[in-house]
Amino acid sequence: MNDPLSLPATANARISPRGGLDVLSRDEVARLRDASTGGQRDLLRRCALAVLTTGSESDDPRAAAQRYPDFDIEVQQQDRGIKIELRNAPATAFVDGEIIRGIAENLFAVVRDIAYNANEVHGSAKFDLDTSAGMTSAVFEILRNARVMKSYQDPSLVVCWGGHSINREEYLYTKKVGYELGLRGLDICTGCGPGAMKGPMKGATIAHAKQRHWKPRYIGITEPGIIAAESPNPIVNHLVIMPDIEKRLEAFVRLGHGIIVFPGGVGTAEEILYLLGLLLHPDNAELPFPLILTGPRESAAYFEQIDQFLRLTLGEAATPRYRIIVDDPAEVAQAMRQGIKRVREHRLKEQDAFFFNWSLHLPLEFQRPFAPTHAAMAGLNLHRDQPAHLLAADLRRAFSGIVAGNVKEEGMREIERHGPFVIDGDRDIMRALDALLNAFVEQRRMKINGTYKPCYRVLGG
Amino acid sequence: MNDPLSLPATANARISPRGGLDVLSRDEVARLRDASTGGQRDLLRRCALAVLTTGSESDDPRAAAQRYPDFDIEVQQQDRGIKIELRNAPATAFVDGEIIRGIAENLFAVVRDIAYNANEVHGSAKFDLDTSAGMTSAVFEILRNARVMKSYQDPSLVVCWGGHSINREEYLYTKKVGYELGLRGLDICTGCGPGAMKGPMKGATIAHAKQRHWKPRYIGITEPGIIAAESPNPIVNHLVIMPDIEKRLEAFVRLGHGIIVFPGGVGTAEEILYLLGLLLHPDNAELPFPLILTGPRESAAYFEQIDQFLRLTLGEAATPRYRIIVDDPAEVAQAMRQGIKRVREHRLKEQDAFFFNWSLHLPLEFQRPFAPTHAAMAGLNLHRDQPAHLLAADLRRAFSGIVAGNVKEEGMREIERHGPFVIDGDRDIMRALDALLNAFVEQRRMKINGTYKPCYRVLGG
Amino acid sequence: MNDPLSLPATANARISPRGGLDVLSRDEVARLRDASTGGQRDLLRRCALAVLTTGSESDDPRAAAQRYPDFDIEVQQQDRGIKIELRNAPATAFVDGEIIRGIAENLFAVVRDIAYNANEVHGSAKFDLDTSAGMTSAVFEILRNARVMKSYQDPSLVVCWGGHSINREEYLYTKKVGYELGLRGLDICTGCGPGAMKGPMKGATIAHAKQRHWKPRYIGITEPGIIAAESPNPIVNHLVIMPDIEKRLEAFVRLGHGIIVFPGGVGTAEEILYLLGLLLHPDNAELPFPLILTGPRESAAYFEQIDQFLRLTLGEAATPRYRIIVDDPAEVAQAMRQGIKRVREHRLKEQDAFFFNWSLHLPLEFQRPFAPTHAAMAGLNLHRDQPAHLLAADLRRAFSGIVAGNVKEEGMREIERHGPFVIDGDRDIMRALDALLNAFVEQRRMKINGTYKPCYRVLGG
Amino acid sequence: MNDPLSLPATANARISPRGGLDVLSRDEVARLRDASTGGQRDLLRRCALAVLTTGSESDDPRAAAQRYPDFDIEVQQQDRGIKIELRNAPATAFVDGEIIRGIAENLFAVVRDIAYNANEVHGSAKFDLDTSAGMTSAVFEILRNARVMKSYQDPSLVVCWGGHSINREEYLYTKKVGYELGLRGLDICTGCGPGAMKGPMKGATIAHAKQRHWKPRYIGITEPGIIAAESPNPIVNHLVIMPDIEKRLEAFVRLGHGIIVFPGGVGTAEEILYLLGLLLHPDNAELPFPLILTGPRESAAYFEQIDQFLRLTLGEAATPRYRIIVDDPAEVAQAMRQGIKRVREHRLKEQDAFFFNWSLHLPLEFQRPFAPTHAAMAGLNLHRDQPAHLLAADLRRAFSGIVAGNVKEEGMREIERHGPFVIDGDRDIMRALDALLNAFVEQRRMKINGTYKPCYRVLGG
Repeated sequence: MNDPLSLPATANARISPRGGLDVLSRDEVARLRDASTGGQRDLLRRCALAVLTTGSESDDPRAAAQRYPDFDIEVQQQDRGIKIELRNAPATAFVDGEIIRGIAENLFAVVRDIAYNANEVHGSAKFDLDTSAGMTSAVFEILRNARVMKSYQDPSLVVCWGGHSINREEYLYTKKVGYELGLRGLDICTGCGPGAMKGPMKGATIAHAKQRHWKPRYIGITEPGIIAAESPNPIVNHLVIMPDIEKRLEAFVRLGHGIIVFPGGVGTAEEILYLLGLLLHPDNAELPFPLILTGPRESAAYFEQIDQFLRLTLGEAATPRYRIIVDDPAEVAQAMRQGIKRVREHRLKEQDAFFFNWSLHLPLEFQRPFAPTHAAMAGLNLHRDQPAHLLAADLRRAFSGIVAGNVKEEGMREIERHGPFVIDGDRDIMRALDALLNAFVEQRRMKINGTYKPCYRVLGG
Repeated sequence: MNDPLSLPATANARISPRGGLDVLSRDEVARLRDASTGGQRDLLRRCALAVLTTGSESDDPRAAAQRYPDFDIEVQQQDRGIKIELRNAPATAFVDGEIIRGIAENLFAVVRDIAYNANEVHGSAKFDLDTSAGMTSAVFEILRNARVMKSYQDPSLVVCWGGHSINREEYLYTKKVGYELGLRGLDICTGCGPGAMKGPMKGATIAHAKQRHWKPRYIGITEPGIIAAESPNPIVNHLVIMPDIEKRLEAFVRLGHGIIVFPGGVGTAEEILYLLGLLLHPDNAELPFPLILTGPRESAAYFEQIDQFLRLTLGEAATPRYRIIVDDPAEVAQAMRQGIKRVREHRLKEQDAFFFNWSLHLPLEFQRPFAPTHAAMAGLNLHRDQPAHLLAADLRRAFSGIVAGNVKEEGMREIERHGPFVIDGDRDIMRALDALLNAFVEQRRMKINGTYKPCYRVLGG
Repeated sequence: MNDPLSLPATANARISPRGGLDVLSRDEVARLRDASTGGQRDLLRRCALAVLTTGSESDDPRAAAQRYPDFDIEVQQQDRGIKIELRNAPATAFVDGEIIRGIAENLFAVVRDIAYNANEVHGSAKFDLDTSAGMTSAVFEILRNARVMKSYQDPSLVVCWGGHSINREEYLYTKKVGYELGLRGLDICTGCGPGAMKGPMKGATIAHAKQRHWKPRYIGITEPGIIAAESPNPIVNHLVIMPDIEKRLEAFVRLGHGIIVFPGGVGTAEEILYLLGLLLHPDNAELPFPLILTGPRESAAYFEQIDQFLRLTLGEAATPRYRIIVDDPAEVAQAMRQGIKRVREHRLKEQDAFFFNWSLHLPLEFQRPFAPTHAAMAGLNLHRDQPAHLLAADLRRAFSGIVAGNVKEEGMREIERHGPFVIDGDRDIMRALDALLNAFVEQRRMKINGTYKPCYRVLGG
Repeated sequence: MNDPLSLPATANARISPRGGLDVLSRDEVARLRDASTGGQRDLLRRCALAVLTTGSESDDPRAAAQRYPDFDIEVQQQDRGIKIELRNAPATAFVDGEIIRGIAENLFAVVRDIAYNANEVHGSAKFDLDTSAGMTSAVFEILRNARVMKSYQDPSLVVCWGGHSINREEYLYTKKVGYELGLRGLDICTGCGPGAMKGPMKGATIAHAKQRHWKPRYIGITEPGIIAAESPNPIVNHLVIMPDIEKRLEAFVRLGHGIIVFPGGVGTAEEILYLLGLLLHPDNAELPFPLILTGPRESAAYFEQIDQFLRLTLGEAATPRYRIIVDDPAEVAQAMRQGIKRVREHRLKEQDAFFFNWSLHLPLEFQRPFAPTHAAMAGLNLHRDQPAHLLAADLRRAFSGIVAGNVKEEGMREIERHGPFVIDGDRDIMRALDALLNAFVEQRRMKINGTYKPCYRVLGG
């Protein structure tokens, strides 16, 4: 199937660790080595390949594996520490035979997090993953192990959400917003893939250079299911692999001091629902959390549609929690700076840490990993006879399932086997949902390449 | 004449100095203050405005002054040091009321260099400007006063020449080359205006971020006559204002470890002639100096034309001194890295400094400021009955005069008063020159805006 | 009993954490707070007081508590992190109302390690303390948690052992040796009390200043039983509190790249026996480990006595493992530098870490905490019918018990209750031991103040 | 005369420059090379030897030259820069064949300053040395060329004056004061010889280590006449060689934010008279300048004597300008900190630089170099019928002449040739002066070694 003649160039290399994996115990070295040969081998191989194929224009998680069928990665033990051995790795990750430093750092992040997730989060009794506090603990420890949190640093981290598959105007717009954020000394955190996840970092890089901001932070947070579809950009100078999408979402909202949402598809909708669900929880009523939805003039209709969907499903109570700004990057950045100032004052008053949003109440419904099987999707409660934040939680799951069906390897297999997911609920919600999803399809927000074949069916839609 | 209603927004500010102007004597403070009120006032105002209007799309040197008629800058004395007071300055240089740090640094560079040039270079007996050694001394001291030279740093500085008015494909190509240079850890030096002077720095900034190269050098070298037409980009983190075009050219070839030429107009032709003239001098025969002419596929014809012109005027002896690479940014960067490696070995062998190319022989003809009056232009010796490097020197002057007539305030005034310059010489040289200039006009390389009206007339062309 | 009028000056203060205790989870904050109010309260109070009374000339562990009867320390929880509240603390730790920065750092080290030892080493199932590997793991993790180990740093750490109660000539000699080590860029690790533990650091500080060695490491390793008698010097810029004397000894030999022994008393004898015991183990036969015994001319007899005792008890096989240098600080430092060079080569060859001596074999006999009860002391096997390293292990325990009886609070209580320890074994060993101990008494190496009343009785001595 | 067998060990070496002499022009390299071969050769040799014999216990300026008769130093030109070649240099400046880094830095400082003084101060028309402003300019430029001044740094520089020949109690006391200054974050500037010039730096080094003050400044200011008698301590991390004693004194009072005077001999008396003369000038009446005279209890009588002499000669008006503190290092440091706080406030109010005391009025009488010939000494106006500051100026010169006669090579030669200087003036002043000088002799403050033979005769004393 793979014609060797058409396969892209590859290279072999041995890489030494960068800061963070340098003072290891013998046990840790052994566990890291085992991670690359034992049960985590496929996972590691897949994630490493995603890092190495950065810049690729495909969001098909299986494409990279097909293009580099002989790629392999091995963590090698040395008493002094570890080395990573790469075989048949994409040549694009190298410059004149040397791996790009940012890519090497991200590779070590992958090794570090996969081993930590396997050994500490799942392989030990350290965290009680049946409780909300235990889940939060796990998220905190993964982030600390990745050395992402800095004390004594003023709040400055803006999380940017939005689609990996956006059009050129939208992409240029995300760069401009990133540029304006960077001019104001703000740092960027994204899901670290292409599109709306890359633009803000590129824009901010130029602005940070102009402002002589020499230690900028470009944090990328991903998870094994999505990393293959959304290759981390090597501008990312802190990459973290969370174990699942729910912990990834929690990491975003605990680390970030404000969130900007650019146009996107179902993944972006999932993120908006997740955050609004949290903010609508009565315990979070007093918590400041700047949330701005923004895009270029051409995308104004997109946000109107989202706005209507939110009003319909979550009610008018949700609207004070977000602000829509159309085609004004400077205004977005100013508003975010103002919002973060209020976050700072609130944290000082409450003596809360700057580096982790402990005060945000996160109910277990939002933390428990959701496995999007056909049964689970059919069983979602998408009716209005429940508190808004619970409806938001299940709507979030609905979108999450569609993301899986679209671009995650396992979800795609499920759909291939059993046909599209069936989604049911209140009539008007279903109609709105169906309309929204159709719009995503029409606007080509579902997949980067090819004709989109829906992985879902909305009943009564 | 200026409708106040249509004038752009302005701001006032007082700015504290950044490194380099911090430990001043009382005399120096007085001289700096005087520079802003005495004979250098107009010059300072003009250069400062150029720095503040960075990013402007015009190359008309008088445009900025017309848009900001009330702009003023004053250096204020304090026993503790100096402050810069700005009045009615372009609001675009500020973010939420604070000046962009890179712009502030460049403003202080302007003050520093204008005062130094007036007081030390021209106002004292420090340098014997009638000798070649004295000229070189002045260039060295201006650069050292600007703290541009670093000892113990391996050769890594690539000078990028090319037009400020280039098309989109060419601009994107310069970014790609800058990116490939940055991936290889190379630093960038340009004339610091838009177009081919900005692209390589932007590309390198992204690559340096990916390679975690945290102390990159983006050196911009300009002169009072050209700065208004070619606003320094604030990515430039070392700005130097040389007193005239000849010292600017000397600064380029003494500082840079290699030179890349992108497509451009007469200014670029001036630069190529200047450098080839030097390299053809017998005393420089053994000196390694990588010189690469490059552009995208669409610009291949451009370099063919330049190549023919060089062969015709300077002879085949010139061709081993440059290499033309079409549409291959990675190859350009690799070749430059190789070339700089040879420069490094040569300097080590000759015990020459890495930071200043003392060994390059620079005859007085190339150093003496050329004032492009009508008489001077008419008197150029553009005949083949002289050593190639002298013909190159006068051809360089011919192009220099046309640059002045196109975009320098004084030159433009001369042309308005006395009509176009008249250029004469060997028939075939004249024909080739005329063809080349016509091509520049057709390709819109002379001016950014409007229809181009030639400031020259080639006899027998 | 305590006359308030005669009590020394005290001060109250609230201190913010320094690096290392800055990014804490809520649980950790709670555990630290609990450590200062629950079961670890007395321990924390005692250790903190030792840090605060640095420079005191007493080695009576109960003296500080009596002088500062109202001293208290509390770790206070804030969502943002922790603060340390001090009440009635020694005024000598403050300068014009502000705590000396080095003392503040060491206080936070105390809190950090006491909490870690209580929660992680003893309060969790993390380490299997019944195995040698588990013990070593615990030592490694405590040191890593204290951020003492640096990767990529060339071997340079010299452990200096020797008495806390030494005479002036000996003290000045330790300074000179420290000075010569410092001139050679070597760093210092000691037990961090006065005397031979302070001199080398002071000497090295001056030498490091002369050599412009700006990031010197002065590591102090102590344990709760001894800290009160041996107050850490604030030159120490990395303080670690190990849970017990055996882990403290293991930390010394795993971290250090070479060891220098100055004159001392029973504690020093314990250290020499410990290390020689290890080095005589067959598994360590090939391991390079520079060990130098040195003192001023006046102390030559001391080392002759030690030498004889070692030859008698451990046999001639022990002698190649150490070198005695009398009155030649430069020679000591040169020899140590040479020795460390061989350590470096060996680690490179074996691919062993520079920061932790994994290859050193440490049998369980040397790791298991020894509680010096009367029964345990009487039960020591001090006979020659066993491998040399096992005899060394029990001799080490005999000295360890005497140290406890001399200066550790619990040991002193035991002696007060039940009279001196009784020590028995081979006749000639007993005679040699008795002679050695008597010499220590005569040379005033047992206690700093007062007439020494032996806490032991050697049978047949 | 020199028995080769008894000469001390020597070494040869080639040394590369440290920061400050790294980016040189060809001319500068040539001038530096010439400085080591031409007219400055002896001066350079003498000063370099002083730096290399640091730690020597002799204050005989000719001793070093006699001990190292074959010592030579040469500055070698390379296009890349310079190297220093040492031949037959004192082996004590080396550790295992490598020069101590601090000594190497100080050697380069010597080369730098001797060349600057010869070429710029005396060899050019840069400074008008007939005017007070010109003198101050020269002092400023020498200090800036030596990179001693830092902008943006809060006032923290305490100048410590006092004898190079002091007794052990006094020396230990200077260490304690330095320690207390260091605990308060203050930096030290001295004449950089032994005794009271070394003690404060050693004390401060230990305190700075305890306070984690990692960039301390230990500035030594000397001049060619005195350096041989007062070898710079290598703790000094900024060494400056001023051209003469008057510029050295000006450097002290312009750089320092406060001055502490320890017991000393005639040199110290010269310094006190100099400073009080300045402070008594009407133009300096409002200028805050903390001046503390201090010593251990045993030296109380010394300061009583000084105090009486000052009251007698300068009148009671002088007394508010200084404070005598006996035997209380902490009080000295607290008072100095308070005084410097007032200096800081005054500079802020007057917008004066922190790094150079421009506001201090320095009359030409205090700046003009004084050559202590017999005629000049006899011609001093030591009568009370003149303003106090002028009498102070001539008393200062009297002491300066005696210093020269005691320990400066040229002065000693004068005395050998023409007998003691004759000093005359008002009777009571002469009597007081004679008594003071006799006390210095008795207290062994004139010379370190041997019986002191006075180089002066006080008429009517």
